[in-house]
Amino acid sequence: MDAAKAVMTRAPGSIAALVSLASADMARVDALIIDRMASPVSVIPALADHLVNAGGKRLRPLLTVAAARLAGATGDACLKLAGAVEFIHTATLLHDDVVDSSHLRRGKAAAHLIWGAPSSVLVGDFLFARAFELMVETGQLRALDILAKASRVIAEGEVLQLTRAHDLNLSQAMYLEIISAKTAELFAAAAEAGAVSAGASDARAAALRAYGQNIGLAFQLADDALDYGGATETLGKNAGDDFREGKATLPLLLAIARLGPREVDFWERAIGRKEQTEADFRRARELIVGAGALEATLDLAAAYADDAKAALAIFPAGPWRDGLEAMADFAVSRRA
Amino acid sequence: MDAAKAVMTRAPGSIAALVSLASADMARVDALIIDRMASPVSVIPALADHLVNAGGKRLRPLLTVAAARLAGATGDACLKLAGAVEFIHTATLLHDDVVDSSHLRRGKAAAHLIWGAPSSVLVGDFLFARAFELMVETGQLRALDILAKASRVIAEGEVLQLTRAHDLNLSQAMYLEIISAKTAELFAAAAEAGAVSAGASDARAAALRAYGQNIGLAFQLADDALDYGGATETLGKNAGDDFREGKATLPLLLAIARLGPREVDFWERAIGRKEQTEADFRRARELIVGAGALEATLDLAAAYADDAKAALAIFPAGPWRDGLEAMADFAVSRRA
Repeated sequence: MDAAKAVMTRAPGSIAALVSLASADMARVDALIIDRMASPVSVIPALADHLVNAGGKRLRPLLTVAAARLAGATGDACLKLAGAVEFIHTATLLHDDVVDSSHLRRGKAAAHLIWGAPSSVLVGDFLFARAFELMVETGQLRALDILAKASRVIAEGEVLQLTRAHDLNLSQAMYLEIISAKTAELFAAAAEAGAVSAGASDARAAALRAYGQNIGLAFQLADDALDYGGATETLGKNAGDDFREGKATLPLLLAIARLGPREVDFWERAIGRKEQTEADFRRARELIVGAGALEATLDLAAAYADDAKAALAIFPAGPWRDGLEAMADFAVSRRA
Repeated sequence: MDAAKAVMTRAPGSIAALVSLASADMARVDALIIDRMASPVSVIPALADHLVNAGGKRLRPLLTVAAARLAGATGDACLKLAGAVEFIHTATLLHDDVVDSSHLRRGKAAAHLIWGAPSSVLVGDFLFARAFELMVETGQLRALDILAKASRVIAEGEVLQLTRAHDLNLSQAMYLEIISAKTAELFAAAAEAGAVSAGASDARAAALRAYGQNIGLAFQLADDALDYGGATETLGKNAGDDFREGKATLPLLLAIARLGPREVDFWERAIGRKEQTEADFRRARELIVGAGALEATLDLAAAYADDAKAALAIFPAGPWRDGLEAMADFAVSRRA
């Protein structure tokens, strides 16, 4: 079974219903984001706007809002927390792109290529601080605690990835530990903070945290698969970025493990030493698909998505729960 | 009157009494700092330790502790806030050194030269997040608000400096605005947060904030003077860094204004275009001293130190107030 078939056997997910359900809330989150990017130092809103309005899907703040509403929130605290979550996410993207010397972000030139790495670092700091200002305004100390811890865990995950990125012997367990910290932690914290702001019970807050953690893992694994074309025959426009940056992601690590010593010189050269020719990405992709590594990565993503949905069983059925369930499937089936 | 005489007419300050008074508190702050630098990702404590234990004077956390004790604090909340203040400061140093491509920090090789700029950026993020975790533990929302706002203002000040650093037409007002944000804000917030954690009245918290703001300005102006030798004939080992980085600090701006069109080609080449020879720093220093710009900078620092001391009048006399008064004089008279 090829990767496309593996995912085809699942119902494709969509965030359309959730986006529609949360549209009034998210319009206010967007307004808040724009309002709080403002600064008398004009480079700051210009640079922040470049990224914030580049058409990101706002999945993480959407998760905060949806978790809060599912947990019965009637007030507005979750909107400020959602804005804070998006600011933390944007700050990490700005710093990541400097750290990785990435060229593209959300289909546009990375901010550091336009404004320089120093501005990207400092505007990231600005957004991070703004996030905490927003959280303080809610007066929700537990949500603050959750998101402060998440910010720290993300930084730890990024450093871990930085020091292990080109390690062809990275274990699957260590790889999952890295993406759990650098990606899934913010999804988990976004959902948990939303739940906590709604006064959810500990069990319900833990369930939404588990949902976020699992959807975050599914999201990152699908992302890693998409970088090698995912379940489609046509490559996305940023496909190959991980390979060109020499990042050891799960599709690659599984292929290396499955192919054994046969291709070791190729991996050593292309990933270990980052000496690549134009043809190398195609070859890597063929090896990865041939070894069933793309399919296995997407199967694992699907398993995490199922765990995410299962975690919602503590809540009664309804449109918010339905929307979050569909979002879990979307994390795996999306094409970009 | 030369610069040395300008400062000689003032009593030299010392932080010895304050350091002694706060020694038990600061030992606990140091233990807390070491404890919270810990991470399973070994690069993080290694890099953080390089900077944290490089012999910084811990002036900002000392200010938090002293402000809290002066305001009557008997509890320990100020210790965690002091640790948070030092983490915020260390995070900004790590990011600043990347932004400025600095070679030395506290007499040691800058962290990014040893571990790389990516690690410095990410460990800065780690320390910033850790600072907020520490603040959340105190449950002091007002202190959190003060330090979140300060973190944002510092980032704004850094961006402003970045975009205006080589501007030879920078006004004195704009220069003061920059150092007020990038340096004095953290001193102000450190003192105010300490006061607030002690349950100080609004008037007393505002007085300690004013003290911090003014000592911060004095500190930065003295720093800028020290970069051109300050009031001594012997240059400190990092003297000339601002000049070599093409930073338009007050001694330089005042000299440019006082010398008029005569040396404009020199400044344009050495600062505007950063085309420098070995002899240029000596020449700049002679011009700055000759124009009385170093003296004027130190006089302004002394005026801010006096404002800092005056702000303390709201408190009864005693060892903590005496210690903070001496610290204000120290900000101006220090030699490094």
